[in-house]
Amino acid sequence: MFDFVFHNPTKIVFGRGQEQSIGLELKQAGVKKVLFVHGRNSIKRSGLFDRVAASLKESGVRYVEFGGVDSNPVLSHTRQGVKRAKQEGVDGVLAVGGGSVLDEGKAIAVGAKAADDVWHYFTGRKVTEALPVFTVLTLAATGSEMNGNAVVTNEETKQKYNISSPLVYPRVSILNPELTCSVPPAYSAYGAVDAIAHVIEGYFTRKAGTHLQDRLVESIIKTVMETTEVIMREPGNYEARAEFMWGATLALNGLTTAGLKEYSFPNHMIEHSLSAIYNIAHGAGLAIVMPAWMKWYCRKNPSRFERFAREVFGLEGSMAGIEALEKWFVSIQAPVRLRDGGIPAGDIEMIAENGAALATLWGISDMYRKEEIADILRLAV
Amino acid sequence: MFDFVFHNPTKIVFGRGQEQSIGLELKQAGVKKVLFVHGRNSIKRSGLFDRVAASLKESGVRYVEFGGVDSNPVLSHTRQGVKRAKQEGVDGVLAVGGGSVLDEGKAIAVGAKAADDVWHYFTGRKVTEALPVFTVLTLAATGSEMNGNAVVTNEETKQKYNISSPLVYPRVSILNPELTCSVPPAYSAYGAVDAIAHVIEGYFTRKAGTHLQDRLVESIIKTVMETTEVIMREPGNYEARAEFMWGATLALNGLTTAGLKEYSFPNHMIEHSLSAIYNIAHGAGLAIVMPAWMKWYCRKNPSRFERFAREVFGLEGSMAGIEALEKWFVSIQAPVRLRDGGIPAGDIEMIAENGAALATLWGISDMYRKEEIADILRLAV
Repeated sequence: MFDFVFHNPTKIVFGRGQEQSIGLELKQAGVKKVLFVHGRNSIKRSGLFDRVAASLKESGVRYVEFGGVDSNPVLSHTRQGVKRAKQEGVDGVLAVGGGSVLDEGKAIAVGAKAADDVWHYFTGRKVTEALPVFTVLTLAATGSEMNGNAVVTNEETKQKYNISSPLVYPRVSILNPELTCSVPPAYSAYGAVDAIAHVIEGYFTRKAGTHLQDRLVESIIKTVMETTEVIMREPGNYEARAEFMWGATLALNGLTTAGLKEYSFPNHMIEHSLSAIYNIAHGAGLAIVMPAWMKWYCRKNPSRFERFAREVFGLEGSMAGIEALEKWFVSIQAPVRLRDGGIPAGDIEMIAENGAALATLWGISDMYRKEEIADILRLAV
Repeated sequence: MFDFVFHNPTKIVFGRGQEQSIGLELKQAGVKKVLFVHGRNSIKRSGLFDRVAASLKESGVRYVEFGGVDSNPVLSHTRQGVKRAKQEGVDGVLAVGGGSVLDEGKAIAVGAKAADDVWHYFTGRKVTEALPVFTVLTLAATGSEMNGNAVVTNEETKQKYNISSPLVYPRVSILNPELTCSVPPAYSAYGAVDAIAHVIEGYFTRKAGTHLQDRLVESIIKTVMETTEVIMREPGNYEARAEFMWGATLALNGLTTAGLKEYSFPNHMIEHSLSAIYNIAHGAGLAIVMPAWMKWYCRKNPSRFERFAREVFGLEGSMAGIEALEKWFVSIQAPVRLRDGGIPAGDIEMIAENGAALATLWGISDMYRKEEIADILRLAV
């Protein structure tokens, strides 16, 4: 077991109707005026916007609305948010939405405290200051509600890069599973793929780890799969939505990787190129990349894949788990080949070049050069 | 899944030699002078005292030594610590030792900010203020390093009661598995029993929960058992000590009970009477109480016990898991009958009366009257 620091100070308030307490949480944290970041109009149609606004009003917290965040949030819109936050002199960010809204909210929180362009923090500069971030989650998938990560796409350069900093852990995240009951089947499926992707990266790539961490990962995968199957049949099943939601949060809150040695996130790295270039949903991109990467990587660490097959699917053999997972992705109608995502096989070289740049930034370019990334992508043709 | 708040802000610094960073952690937290709480002389013999003192000195943090904490820490000594903390005007508590030292340290942190006697906070008064607590753990068992609980025995009244408050979550806990390598076999075994006890209480008594929480519990139990078996054979095995240590921390940091409904801690409740009256090790008392309680409770919720048997031991039937766990306790030389702990069966009525008082304080006296507690204890004769 490798040395680690685990420090996750986010307060999770979980349950029905809990968004009504967000005003009080902000007030208790001393926040007077927030940038209220959200996406398109769905939270207005659903009434969530009004409920959150009412909670803020009741607690005397003022807000400046900043809507229009896209899935795969983009740098240009993030910059607008930063400008708005500075102009209005807000002292906090409240992000209400899915992972994209949360991520852009975090990026704005960093940018609002920065003297120059926020993109510097995505390309290596260390975050030293940020506005406090608060969230109300409406889509379970990314884990952004309980971690210090934020991913934004620079649409000019086609770079989908990330910030990682303890300063952008949300102070408080409201997790009301009811809010996820209206998430359409396709996005529920992508959320499941994303949560699974978060735990398998460390599980397969780690140089050292323990049975405890393995079991946590397997527990999360089995739970995500079971609950997703219920959600596909009954989208409004509260219990399944709730268990899924908490599972997705635990999948990327630092718990499953604490004590691992030298793990990496190659599936996320390669997927970032797909959504940076083709703007496909992150979970959809991961469903395409993961089986391909697993087939490619399996030779390097077959015993991990044997364990995965046995513990998650009750199957024998290193390839059996990969095939079962791919079949399961198909069963929830997630794409598993490039063409399913509308990505031309002829673009592989170009995608691999984009991926290789991120591999350099992430310090794993020895293993993931352009050639290897292209090899992996060819397994998804 | 029931509504919950999960907020565990403790920073865990895990790994070899990490106690050398404690001075810096205190300095960064703005602490100038700590009460350095410890037990008998073991940390002086091992050199740990000197290493911690050197780290404090290097960071310019002054300390006042306050040693002599007993296992099953007592109120009279806690009161001395409170007095000392007030006299010396310390602005933090540093507890270096096992769960007992940590618990007394937390109690002193509360008492030092209180106008009157600290015992009030064990009998129902809400904690509203406490000095910040920091810990260096030397024995993995109680989970006190990452939660807001502290248990102290009032030796005059024979009451072993607890404080629970977010204000006594340690700010920073140093977990160096090397420090636990010298823990003798008996105490390593008691630690294992304690960690298992922490997770089974919610697992068996909950009115509602999820597969995810069940799996986390089963993962922790299996890990604790496996690693304890290694530790019994090779006390100095770092990997086993490390995995055990982190497992014991996760066993009582709020994770396994998040989202459970109406769970209780009857095994701890009954055990508290045993160690309050006979001063036996908490883990030893739990090893006696748990199989008895399980046999008594099994009828009320047989399906939980069937799952336990199947998932933890690969056995069928509600009683099979209880028998296997009892057998396992015996295999690690933990006591499983009252006589093994030197407790006369003739005292059962008196013990049950003591337990019933705690049941009232904990709000579970409808299920655990004196008669039921006596019935349970008779199963341990």
